[in-house]
Amino acid sequence: MDVISVIRTKRDRGELSPEQIDWVIDAYTRGVVADEQMSALAMAILLNGMNRTEIARWTAAMIASGERMNFDSLSRPTADKHSTGGVGDKITLPLAPLVAACGAAVPQLSGRGLGHTGGTLDKLESIPGWRALLSNEEMLNVLDTTGAVICAAGDGLAPADKKLYALRDVTGTVEAIPLIASSIMSKKIAEGTGSLVLDVKVGTGAFMKNIEDARELASTMVALGTDSGVKTVALLTDMSTPLGLTAGNALEVRESVEVLAGGGPADVVELTIALAREMLDAAGIKDADPAKALADGSAMDVWRRMIAAQGGDPDATLPVAREQHVITAPSSGVLTRLDAYDIGVAAWRLGAGRARKEDPVQAGAGVELHAKPGDTVTAGQPLLTLHTDTPEKFEYALESVAGSYDVAPAGTAFTATPIVRERIA
Amino acid sequence: MDVISVIRTKRDRGELSPEQIDWVIDAYTRGVVADEQMSALAMAILLNGMNRTEIARWTAAMIASGERMNFDSLSRPTADKHSTGGVGDKITLPLAPLVAACGAAVPQLSGRGLGHTGGTLDKLESIPGWRALLSNEEMLNVLDTTGAVICAAGDGLAPADKKLYALRDVTGTVEAIPLIASSIMSKKIAEGTGSLVLDVKVGTGAFMKNIEDARELASTMVALGTDSGVKTVALLTDMSTPLGLTAGNALEVRESVEVLAGGGPADVVELTIALAREMLDAAGIKDADPAKALADGSAMDVWRRMIAAQGGDPDATLPVAREQHVITAPSSGVLTRLDAYDIGVAAWRLGAGRARKEDPVQAGAGVELHAKPGDTVTAGQPLLTLHTDTPEKFEYALESVAGSYDVAPAGTAFTATPIVRERIA
Repeated sequence: MDVISVIRTKRDRGELSPEQIDWVIDAYTRGVVADEQMSALAMAILLNGMNRTEIARWTAAMIASGERMNFDSLSRPTADKHSTGGVGDKITLPLAPLVAACGAAVPQLSGRGLGHTGGTLDKLESIPGWRALLSNEEMLNVLDTTGAVICAAGDGLAPADKKLYALRDVTGTVEAIPLIASSIMSKKIAEGTGSLVLDVKVGTGAFMKNIEDARELASTMVALGTDSGVKTVALLTDMSTPLGLTAGNALEVRESVEVLAGGGPADVVELTIALAREMLDAAGIKDADPAKALADGSAMDVWRRMIAAQGGDPDATLPVAREQHVITAPSSGVLTRLDAYDIGVAAWRLGAGRARKEDPVQAGAGVELHAKPGDTVTAGQPLLTLHTDTPEKFEYALESVAGSYDVAPAGTAFTATPIVRERIA
Repeated sequence: MDVISVIRTKRDRGELSPEQIDWVIDAYTRGVVADEQMSALAMAILLNGMNRTEIARWTAAMIASGERMNFDSLSRPTADKHSTGGVGDKITLPLAPLVAACGAAVPQLSGRGLGHTGGTLDKLESIPGWRALLSNEEMLNVLDTTGAVICAAGDGLAPADKKLYALRDVTGTVEAIPLIASSIMSKKIAEGTGSLVLDVKVGTGAFMKNIEDARELASTMVALGTDSGVKTVALLTDMSTPLGLTAGNALEVRESVEVLAGGGPADVVELTIALAREMLDAAGIKDADPAKALADGSAMDVWRRMIAAQGGDPDATLPVAREQHVITAPSSGVLTRLDAYDIGVAAWRLGAGRARKEDPVQAGAGVELHAKPGDTVTAGQPLLTLHTDTPEKFEYALESVAGSYDVAPAGTAFTATPIVRERIA
């Protein structure tokens, strides 16, 4: 087996054999296949595709590159969620304790943000004392005692994916559906969850800009999960405008706590409950009521225990950015558009996100929304507040915000996009 | 400018701007763009193509990455030849001194062999004492005093191409016509020749397996040369069977000397004279007669002076391989096929070529042909002789030779492919 023949097979629109896939993933993990060879193969896959058989084998080979976790020792069924990433997508924060409060065990191995979408771990790290890095024993212990754990995925899970993901990020080969699907599912299957709900975002602020691509990605992942014995369901959800009223780290934690306290923005509550119902259903828990668990404080109880178990102080004051800049509505009327991508880029530029994976993030930075599409606004009222510790960043963030919204005359018809657009099982 | 936006442009079937091309070639040469990024771009170019405007700019940027030579100080017009590579293609050896004998200056900057096609420098290095590496001053001096020089291209010419060529070789991105054309032409234009004849090989033993691809490559290169002020002509020539009766280093030098002595195989003589006429015509030399210069010994005189000027002894005994293995005709009849690729691979496996660029080659190794397609053969007569210093290689070479020829019953009609198939100017 040699790497050039593997590259040529895909380059010339052939089907990679199981042997070719197993060999190339293993050889790449061991450093026998070089980065420049794998990036050429990734580009050939992006342009010429892989069929379902190839994707399944590719995913299995990435799982086989590392260890697999096992939650059989837990007394509760496990349920996990994965989002393909969006702006203001803090859903994991209220969702994990909520689903735990309803009786499932939620092992939520998460990542950091890169580019315009935030990362769950970055958000939680704005809570003083909270630790993302746990040993496997610590993780199982937090999960067993509180019902939920949100922590960094260990280095042992799908190391081939870790290496390939970093390579794709710098070679223009991120946007390949077979590679996105196998990357997500290799980690989730290796993680050992019994059921999985996928939140596949669609819209300007998502990787998938149109519903057809989102549908293809979702159905590819559902098939991969199901074939591996993981009960898998996907929701296609709207990401044309940010979720909730905040995009940033501490800003989103504050909003998540509001949801756990029974309040919070309607869209965040709706999506949290919709995903909770899917997770509970997939885990085989029939008679739980997530809306009630938010209202009666039981989800909040799990949240407080979960944060405390990882060293965080659930009562600590969250960091606030040193500087604010308010953008006001230019005219009175109806806010008809508030673009997720532009707001995500602005939050990133203000310091909430990172350009390279070694960069630090600002806990207090981000964008606060004072109106959502469909809302009536009055000229001069605050529309957005930008937060940062480094005010020299306002100008660069304002460039992204400038074209991010439209205000139409009062009375203009506005049709809201539903949060949950489709369900694929 | 950032490399991911350049990769994405080509990945998404866009046209690279002049600024993108200039930037990416320069940044790659300086190491700012990494190998894994350039290989992803090369694969995107291979699969999505480049138009003539992009190819011209890409070539210009590779030329600008290094120095340009200048032959204006010479009293004679310059003429150069480039072959895309074939099996038994020793034509440069008799051709350069022949064209010099007819009045042009021939600066022949050549390369080493890689894979199944031989390299001109490897062949000449089988002559005891001969040196391929000359300084620019030495090269000009040999050219000025003898009329021809065959030597290694200096590191200063198109360094971007040198780096990219090595990368393409290990990433399955060699077979991209825009990249092949710009690689060849950047070196030839930087080299400073006034006129250039391209020998574009077509057939099993060539990079271009079919006439359509060869035509596209040839017309791309002719346009690039012409636009850069180099008088450029291309001949498409047959490479379905080896040229002449030898493939190997010393074996081909011996055959070249036979041609210079007025003998040699008919196909080698025919192609040498056809290319010489094109070079002399392109250089503006009207009344020279290359056939006469072969017959009267004037080409041989230049050869002897040229070899001696680079330290070689034109009268030295050439190396002979330590072991021979003869393959005989399995039946009597007409040899209807003798495959160039299979013979090239056999010669390579016997030690005439290298697998990696740091490997040594055997001077005496190779394949000797005792019949050519169209010849009548008798059962048991020698068909091929394999030569090597390392007899354990016979078995591996024999695998390649096994299916390389067909002998049909006597009287079977045979139509020879002409050596020169098309001319593109």
